[in-house]
Amino acid sequence: MLKLYIGNKNYSSWSMRPWVLMKQAGIAFEEVMVPFDSFGADSHFKKTIEPLNPAGRVPVLVDGAIVVYDTLAICEYLAETHPDKALWPRDKARRAHARSVCAEMHAGFAALRTHCGMNIEADLRVQGKIILRDQPEVRAELARIVQMWSGLLEAHGGPMLFGEFGIADAYFAPVGVRIRTYGLPVPGEITAYIARVQQLPGVKAWIDDALVEKRFVVVDEPYRIEG
Amino acid sequence: MLKLYIGNKNYSSWSMRPWVLMKQAGIAFEEVMVPFDSFGADSHFKKTIEPLNPAGRVPVLVDGAIVVYDTLAICEYLAETHPDKALWPRDKARRAHARSVCAEMHAGFAALRTHCGMNIEADLRVQGKIILRDQPEVRAELARIVQMWSGLLEAHGGPMLFGEFGIADAYFAPVGVRIRTYGLPVPGEITAYIARVQQLPGVKAWIDDALVEKRFVVVDEPYRIEG
Ligand SMILES: N[C@@H](CCC(=O)N[C@@H](CS)C(=O)NCC(=O)O)C(=O)O
Ligand SMILES: N[C@@H](CCC(=O)N[C@@H](CS)C(=O)NCC(=O)O)C(=O)O
Repeated sequence: MLKLYIGNKNYSSWSMRPWVLMKQAGIAFEEVMVPFDSFGADSHFKKTIEPLNPAGRVPVLVDGAIVVYDTLAICEYLAETHPDKALWPRDKARRAHARSVCAEMHAGFAALRTHCGMNIEADLRVQGKIILRDQPEVRAELARIVQMWSGLLEAHGGPMLFGEFGIADAYFAPVGVRIRTYGLPVPGEITAYIARVQQLPGVKAWIDDALVEKRFVVVDEPYRIEG
Repeated sequence: MLKLYIGNKNYSSWSMRPWVLMKQAGIAFEEVMVPFDSFGADSHFKKTIEPLNPAGRVPVLVDGAIVVYDTLAICEYLAETHPDKALWPRDKARRAHARSVCAEMHAGFAALRTHCGMNIEADLRVQGKIILRDQPEVRAELARIVQMWSGLLEAHGGPMLFGEFGIADAYFAPVGVRIRTYGLPVPGEITAYIARVQQLPGVKAWIDDALVEKRFVVVDEPYRIEG
């Protein structure tokens, strides 16, 4: 049975991607949660993860003797080992495009990731207004997301970015979560796409788990006090 | 014929990766160089690249009507369309591992990339000493590189990271260039691996082109004056 090592569901946007991908695609796996304590060398988190992934990060997928780490490598591994699930689009041009936008996400959107950390159970609409006012790079990255998603939804007719649900939708699911949490302004067709993604059973299952998690992690919420 | 859009050979580490991959693997392509002027919205660079890649970056690969951008997506596209070249290792476990380290590179090593920008024709060993003294994250990332490469060379017996030359070696080729330019201290087996990579005809061809390029770009060399 595949084993997926993940971090806290409320905060770990990278863990969310392969988890919702597998749930939604119906790929069976066992979840191993390694809660964030700190990311210090002596933390329980690092001591558990480093023997599997020397880079010391989640997610990590274990398939018998094979260990795959880093989200994009995990998604490629799942696509390759489950060809029947069409995790990438079956059409060659769409597949190339889906890989392009996922690689863009994998390396990019640094400002959005830094300033709008994922925090599923919070309502940070006030913080979102301040961030948008003060951070031109967050505004530029949000504009790129809107441009990308609108173009893909129009080109492929929805309901998902490349037609049917796949890796690209899983890859951007945490961005949709952030847009909602921080109340970032987007056109109606983008709000509707985010809602469609969040209603997928595999995505909803993660969000529901995050909402009941209640493990406050100080380093993930510098802007508030527990309680 | 495949067309690869790239930036200046002296500076553009991302462009270097698919270029040396294709050269070394013997995949024919036409090179289209779009020299860096600035990255402003009105620059010649952005106006040329944005119609192909709305994210406005090189490299971009064009294959007839198919446009692939972002280095990792380009490499996956090449691997998929040239199965005979074994750009990823043929062994499933090695392939998963190679994808993991490339995804780690694609998203990571931010300090090394920021502080030790690629500059093939320069000798920046003095700057390298200062950077190493002042930047603990550069030291940590260098240690991770050494750990990764030593482990792979030992596990697979060389000469390349996963045995024969492939995407992983292309992915880390610019890191080897930086280690040399900035004189970053590494164990002998790492120096030897870097030298082996730089002697591959496909890699040497890029380095030779970079050395005669002589197009000074101010934003890429904040630490010196042209001439
Ligand atoms: N490029 C990695 C990023 C993974 C990542 O940053 N994971 C976070 C949790 S969401 C982590 O493990 N952080 C620990 C640390 O940075 O020390 C991937 O795609 O898997
Ligand atoms: N994640 C991208 C990064 C590409 C990248 O940053 N390219 C640089 C040149 S090496 C660029 O085009 N920069 C223009 C800019 O940042 O505006 C990839 O892997 O292709």
